[in-house]
Amino acid sequence: MTDTQFPPADSIDDVEEGSDFAPHFNDAGLIPAMAIDAETNAPLMFAFMNRESLALTLETGLAHYYSRSRGSLWKKGETSGQLQHIERVRTDCDQDVLVLEVRVAGDGAACHTGRATCFYRRVNPDRSLTTIDNVRKIDPEATYGKK
Amino acid sequence: MTDTQFPPADSIDDVEEGSDFAPHFNDAGLIPAMAIDAETNAPLMFAFMNRESLALTLETGLAHYYSRSRGSLWKKGETSGQLQHIERVRTDCDQDVLVLEVRVAGDGAACHTGRATCFYRRVNPDRSLTTIDNVRKIDPEATYGKK
Repeated sequence: MTDTQFPPADSIDDVEEGSDFAPHFNDAGLIPAMAIDAETNAPLMFAFMNRESLALTLETGLAHYYSRSRGSLWKKGETSGQLQHIERVRTDCDQDVLVLEVRVAGDGAACHTGRATCFYRRVNPDRSLTTIDNVRKIDPEATYGKK
Repeated sequence: MTDTQFPPADSIDDVEEGSDFAPHFNDAGLIPAMAIDAETNAPLMFAFMNRESLALTLETGLAHYYSRSRGSLWKKGETSGQLQHIERVRTDCDQDVLVLEVRVAGDGAACHTGRATCFYRRVNPDRSLTTIDNVRKIDPEATYGKK
């Protein structure tokens, strides 16, 4: 049985320097998580986790998130085959953000557009966008169905 | 005069594939931003931006955030000297998250604990934490004053 309870935070010193994991979930019960490539550190995608998805991620070694649009647990790659194998989870000083160092299975697409990363565009100082990665590792329409 | 207005999002296709920057701010008027090292991609810190901090970041080339605890604009490094020079800003498919590729000035400490990164602890599968970076690049007490 997956234990979805996490201990409450103690003092600030414990939160910042302790060895007890006491993640801080926001008012909606979620904690932000950034997935990065375990080898290159390249940023891949950003999503939220609830207690259940965090517990399952730690237990199974596969990234689970919480889909705010669908309002449900989301095992990344379940539909697309682009599972994210966890190499390492990290938390920050305040224990209110997670970084997941992952290896993406299948074709290596972390983004639903079929690209390796969701961060495929640069924001220019003039506020225009420039696409810096346009390689589709999977065909999103074939994978997820037509829009 | 800094223009703090950003255009509204158009169609999903435009948001995902267009060249117009139409960042999505959440109900609190904030957008999450992850700062990473421009050279190594190492994750450094996570914070939120409001429209003003995003506009100033793009205009000045220095990372500005919004402090939720203080309820005010936060020019990173103003007190500590650890300014974050922007090499590149990236946005994701949904345009609701930003990645800032930065070079940290001063002693290279992005974390208020004095470390290079806020992500200095690993979360183990048994839910304990292991410190993986304990190098203090600055003395937080000398920099920010006693707690």
